[in-house]
Amino acid sequence: MPLEQLVQTFLPAIEEELHKAIAKARGPDMDLLHHMLAYHLGWEGEKAGPEARGKRIRPILLLLTTAAAGGDWQNALPAAAAVELIHNFSLIHDDIEDNSPVRRGRPTLWKLWGVPQAINAGDALFSLAHLALLDLSQHTSANTTLKTSHLLLETCLQLTRGQYLDISYELRGDLTLQAYWPMVNGKTAALLGTCTELGALVAEAEAPVCSAYQEFGHALGLAFQVLDDLLGIWGDAALTGKSAESDLLSGKKSLPVLFGLSRAGDFAARWAQGPITADEVPFLASQLEREGAHAYTRECANDLTEEALKALERAQPQGNAGEALQLLAHKLLNRQV
Amino acid sequence: MPLEQLVQTFLPAIEEELHKAIAKARGPDMDLLHHMLAYHLGWEGEKAGPEARGKRIRPILLLLTTAAAGGDWQNALPAAAAVELIHNFSLIHDDIEDNSPVRRGRPTLWKLWGVPQAINAGDALFSLAHLALLDLSQHTSANTTLKTSHLLLETCLQLTRGQYLDISYELRGDLTLQAYWPMVNGKTAALLGTCTELGALVAEAEAPVCSAYQEFGHALGLAFQVLDDLLGIWGDAALTGKSAESDLLSGKKSLPVLFGLSRAGDFAARWAQGPITADEVPFLASQLEREGAHAYTRECANDLTEEALKALERAQPQGNAGEALQLLAHKLLNRQV
Repeated sequence: MPLEQLVQTFLPAIEEELHKAIAKARGPDMDLLHHMLAYHLGWEGEKAGPEARGKRIRPILLLLTTAAAGGDWQNALPAAAAVELIHNFSLIHDDIEDNSPVRRGRPTLWKLWGVPQAINAGDALFSLAHLALLDLSQHTSANTTLKTSHLLLETCLQLTRGQYLDISYELRGDLTLQAYWPMVNGKTAALLGTCTELGALVAEAEAPVCSAYQEFGHALGLAFQVLDDLLGIWGDAALTGKSAESDLLSGKKSLPVLFGLSRAGDFAARWAQGPITADEVPFLASQLEREGAHAYTRECANDLTEEALKALERAQPQGNAGEALQLLAHKLLNRQV
Repeated sequence: MPLEQLVQTFLPAIEEELHKAIAKARGPDMDLLHHMLAYHLGWEGEKAGPEARGKRIRPILLLLTTAAAGGDWQNALPAAAAVELIHNFSLIHDDIEDNSPVRRGRPTLWKLWGVPQAINAGDALFSLAHLALLDLSQHTSANTTLKTSHLLLETCLQLTRGQYLDISYELRGDLTLQAYWPMVNGKTAALLGTCTELGALVAEAEAPVCSAYQEFGHALGLAFQVLDDLLGIWGDAALTGKSAESDLLSGKKSLPVLFGLSRAGDFAARWAQGPITADEVPFLASQLEREGAHAYTRECANDLTEEALKALERAQPQGNAGEALQLLAHKLLNRQV
């Protein structure tokens, strides 16, 4: 299976590039700063290992795109490292902003070393990510490197826009269903669209091909998030036995919840009364389903999946990597609900 | 007087460029995000105005350098905006990390809008700063723009190194006098050295000239901080009447304090016993002076000032701007102590 083989080829190269990028934080008296980053990336500290590292979906998607667009994936490694580091930078700050004590089964940075050091470690990672990207100039023109740098910075701005909306939404009772999309666009889809666009740019693909790949990654990101929201309420973990995993408990303004609120029915009336308890979860999940939220969310996911696959088709991905990209999209979008 | 005239020419152009850079944060539903940044930069909100804006020393220094190195200062405006925005980004996060409620006579961002929004606004400013810099490519080559981008990112990494040390030092009782320099290098001198280096790079100055300007800005930054530390204990505000302004009260590990601790005399013994109160300030300031801290700090400031002026001489600054650079250095380094 080409996807699995390519992933096994990419992963060690991605880890090596990430190590190279993080090594720039080393220096006299800088051991703890470096350790904080190595801990967050899953390399050091308690429970270090693959589980703590996450799946490296973003760099894999980027490298597959470079190869599928006819480029040499090894030339794209600086960009692959950069997107993974940007993702991790945003997680460090999000965990502080959301007051989350746990990430990938381990205490978060702020929980272990305090908010001041965690904010600062995130800032260091932000710089290291963009520095990593500039290593592209070893194999691509100064103009292409500049273009990628501009794109990644714009994407970081998008991330902060999405996070700004997410934080604002916590305090707002007047949200419409439409409020969902700019938030998810900034928080998830923008970076995935940038992964595929960067991959195509490094391959020096033509502008329409770059756009098609960008649209593919972007729609993939939206579809993935919508499915995640579906699983967050009706997935096995959320529904059977482990209601503690349900998005209904955390008060997350996910797509099904915003749909339910827009109906202004029984679900919305209960939501307005304050935090939901674990024993209410099964009943409210089926109430939300009866009000049409499950069907609506499923339909959105299907539409976005179709959009993603059509964009990928337009990009005309080549060879093994092209096949692998299609498999990856199907794999990400066919999770059981 | 050429300095004053040039500053009056530069300031409106700097503000315009800053506005252009911050406008990229605008968008549907983004009013508050934009307002937070405009507030922090002194343009909006209560007590907006020149006092709230700060002196814009960094962009002025950068533009003077471009002109003194024979370049067109208007071409350097994107870099001038970028260094001012990076400075302000670091202030937003530092204020959270130091738990400071007031900045330039006004409530800090986190105090007004909460820590989550303030961290995120800082991140937005970070992206906007680096995006601003990329506008250099309108007037300089892609290679020069890339070089400046690399330099500013490295400097941001240095800022986080300095801040990492500063936060670490709060908990350490075993600091040596030498611990001072890497912290101040990262927190203050690195960015000032980068201002002058960027200015010279935009002027397409030769490598040795760029280095001389970098050394000038760097030594100027160190000298400025050491003088600031001197004023923080023996300046008028700190000593006469307003002991509340004294660095002795805030527990800051400034150069005179680290000198005093390294002597292990009466001052060090008192410091080890816990926070100093306002009524102790005059006595402890003169005790520190008797132990040699004032003379030592003064000598450091003098040496660094001389180093800065020698580096500036090596750079052979030209014309009115060159004269103005020398005046600026003298002005910054001849504050009353």
